[in-house]
Amino acid sequence: MLDAAKEIAHVLGEDAVSFDADVLEHHGHSDWSTSNSSERAVAVVYPRSTDDVVRIAQICHERRVPMVPFGAGSSVEGNFSQPHSGICIDFAYMDKVIAFHPDDMDVVVQPGVNWVDLNSRIAHAGLFAPLDPSPTATIGGMVSTNCSGTNAMRYGTMKDWVLNLTVVLADGTIIKTRRRPRKNSAGYNLTSLFVGAEGTLGIVTEVTLKLAPIPQDTSVAVVAFPSIGDAAAAASKLIRSGIQLAALEMMDEAQMRLLNQHGSETVRKRHWAEQPTLFLKFSGTTDAIKSDASRASSIIKPFSGGSKFHFARSKQDEHDLWAARKEALFTMVSTRPPGTEIWSTDVAVPVSRLPEIIELSKAECGQLGIFASVIGHVGDGNFHVAMLYDPSNAEQKQAVARCVHNMMDRALEMEGTVSGEHAIGIGKKECLVDELGEDTIELMRTLKLAMDPKWVMNPGKVFDLKTHAKREG
Amino acid sequence: MLDAAKEIAHVLGEDAVSFDADVLEHHGHSDWSTSNSSERAVAVVYPRSTDDVVRIAQICHERRVPMVPFGAGSSVEGNFSQPHSGICIDFAYMDKVIAFHPDDMDVVVQPGVNWVDLNSRIAHAGLFAPLDPSPTATIGGMVSTNCSGTNAMRYGTMKDWVLNLTVVLADGTIIKTRRRPRKNSAGYNLTSLFVGAEGTLGIVTEVTLKLAPIPQDTSVAVVAFPSIGDAAAAASKLIRSGIQLAALEMMDEAQMRLLNQHGSETVRKRHWAEQPTLFLKFSGTTDAIKSDASRASSIIKPFSGGSKFHFARSKQDEHDLWAARKEALFTMVSTRPPGTEIWSTDVAVPVSRLPEIIELSKAECGQLGIFASVIGHVGDGNFHVAMLYDPSNAEQKQAVARCVHNMMDRALEMEGTVSGEHAIGIGKKECLVDELGEDTIELMRTLKLAMDPKWVMNPGKVFDLKTHAKREG
Repeated sequence: MLDAAKEIAHVLGEDAVSFDADVLEHHGHSDWSTSNSSERAVAVVYPRSTDDVVRIAQICHERRVPMVPFGAGSSVEGNFSQPHSGICIDFAYMDKVIAFHPDDMDVVVQPGVNWVDLNSRIAHAGLFAPLDPSPTATIGGMVSTNCSGTNAMRYGTMKDWVLNLTVVLADGTIIKTRRRPRKNSAGYNLTSLFVGAEGTLGIVTEVTLKLAPIPQDTSVAVVAFPSIGDAAAAASKLIRSGIQLAALEMMDEAQMRLLNQHGSETVRKRHWAEQPTLFLKFSGTTDAIKSDASRASSIIKPFSGGSKFHFARSKQDEHDLWAARKEALFTMVSTRPPGTEIWSTDVAVPVSRLPEIIELSKAECGQLGIFASVIGHVGDGNFHVAMLYDPSNAEQKQAVARCVHNMMDRALEMEGTVSGEHAIGIGKKECLVDELGEDTIELMRTLKLAMDPKWVMNPGKVFDLKTHAKREG
Repeated sequence: MLDAAKEIAHVLGEDAVSFDADVLEHHGHSDWSTSNSSERAVAVVYPRSTDDVVRIAQICHERRVPMVPFGAGSSVEGNFSQPHSGICIDFAYMDKVIAFHPDDMDVVVQPGVNWVDLNSRIAHAGLFAPLDPSPTATIGGMVSTNCSGTNAMRYGTMKDWVLNLTVVLADGTIIKTRRRPRKNSAGYNLTSLFVGAEGTLGIVTEVTLKLAPIPQDTSVAVVAFPSIGDAAAAASKLIRSGIQLAALEMMDEAQMRLLNQHGSETVRKRHWAEQPTLFLKFSGTTDAIKSDASRASSIIKPFSGGSKFHFARSKQDEHDLWAARKEALFTMVSTRPPGTEIWSTDVAVPVSRLPEIIELSKAECGQLGIFASVIGHVGDGNFHVAMLYDPSNAEQKQAVARCVHNMMDRALEMEGTVSGEHAIGIGKKECLVDELGEDTIELMRTLKLAMDPKWVMNPGKVFDLKTHAKREG
């Protein structure tokens, strides 16, 4: 492996390779992640072009050295960790916007581009990429985990916004999955095969993203409910109504209490009801929003037990209301007691089952006597549970792990998934087998082996080699 | 092959297999299709369950007999023809709705379900599957060609509405690609790999479709323009405006003239301007539609040369205006001169290039002295050209083929695709190589060979075996 790194340094230049222990540590571990492996890469390499990636792949493929792509390091299931060591490929210097086509409403970017930066750079043309993951995330990682966020209810997930990909395959072959039209039924959908494959099938070096027009206007409304069940029932009616919501989010009473205690000044001063709360985002023309908000208010009324429907009265008001939703995770992380760690996970179920799984999971977490909160993308049947635990307390850690696994089992019983938007990484491999069964995993393995027979592309993620271990020696 | 058919008859019963020449002809040729092969299947088999399909696959796989799935027979690129003969699998008896989950907004169906029937059956719950291909199409074929239609601008294409698939693989193994949540980032997106694969990777036997709420209201507006360029420029402004159009369609002056001459009485009596015409469909709340239509009218004004913005004044008016768009293809086919055939094809380009490619293609077709018209899903940069020609006139037929191929080359020069919504079949295989290049096709071939090493799943479609011919003998 070290020889491979040295050869890469020889070919790409010494500056393109780092052996620094701190750099390796930073690329191999994350406090945000629920899954970290103990191994580290032998080197981090920094390509500047697709051709650089080709050379890296050729060298690693020849020497059977694992290649692990690294974006912003903000994924949470160990997606970029290096359980089999190898070479970590950091796309920090592949951060260029290659071509912006406002009239076609698309943009071609390198994988290291940050999505918030991208959206600021193209806003003048009235366009945006409508994903909403962690603000640190880069396009390459977003592609590889099929990310989403609060906008998914209206705009879908990453897979819905990628028009084509340039991918370097295991042996260094460059392919382009498609051309640039917005609609396409020509040949296999290779684009969608790579989106969400976590770099296990190839390394994405260029991404063409479809863009959406920035809505003429947006607004926000917030309503508290007597119970999770009431909030979920109201959410279900809203979803079925056909009102075009941009987002529909829920936070539980624990999360609201935390905002009253530790939120930013703007958020704290509102004195939120410490009850399950729905956050609605509207977008469209100003007139349509007014009409949608008034319809939404009537739909919600029978469920809210008299709580007020807070509709933003100004742009400042809109910003402040939504800030509560946006600050939630950060507030939890920044105010956690010293020594505690956060276990954050997500599942998704058919929307009708959401109240049930949230209530069961909350009840179970509640028994542990630790801080646990729920934030739900209820419009998609997807929610996150975050728990703060003391990692030095083995019993507590085990209890938290049990809670998480019970929640995943419950999601599967309800025909749901163990991962709504964080992908599988190393953290959820066993659960994926439970979700899909051995025959489906075996098909994924067949595809992986056909494309990467030496098993060098981000090995140890999504699923294991297992039954093919013999073949590979 | 005949032995395979007899064995299937033995296992599934004599009623499940037909050797009738008329039946074979009906399953092997279509007047609507631009691509028909001369070979026919040796038998048509009619499974009634996934297990029946497993038995068929096991028998065919064992004997290396081609399996060709058949839905409604309305595809147009020879997608269901049998160039290597084999067994045709007709899903006419797998036409059950297996489970309808209105609260989850999804439905589980067999592949033989017709989409218009499905939408009538679930309308009582306020839900629909928002695709809009040929009214005869069945879900299995819609999955396999990644179909779309006029609703794609707002709702996307088939790939965006399939939550999971049950698939019988070449050797008879049953897999399920995913479970039933609306959002998912767990493992490879096998669902999207099978959508659009035209039955070359496996046989779809169950489909879970996401459903959309039926909008509170819809309406339609129609405007004529001095030129295709003006219509396209107006369309581009509309798309960028963020107005949530359900559809944005264009018909050229030839198509409008035909409607004046041969449309249904309702359509004829309007005396349409024989100019390029945009058809706008609005959907949403009644208030939002009013506001959207008024905004659309102002956006269009500078381009329409004084033509009126006809906004439907009643439900009847809405129906009658849209009827012109819906009747277009049928009017052309039913009034064609005796002995002529129709060549209908589609391409898609980045939206800014649409006026240019339409004008160039119209000019070229115009020189042939035959009827040629353009219908465009302009919201997606996708359009159809239909030409009526005399198949007994070899020179004319060749000239039409040249026009079509020049149009595809032009689409590729503009970074477009040779197939926006009809898939590849046998008709566009060479063009697909031009579109994607040999390395990308080779990756598709690698996947196909890994999943279907005996090359028995709908062989001869999408791409050819070629370089692997030696390996396969």
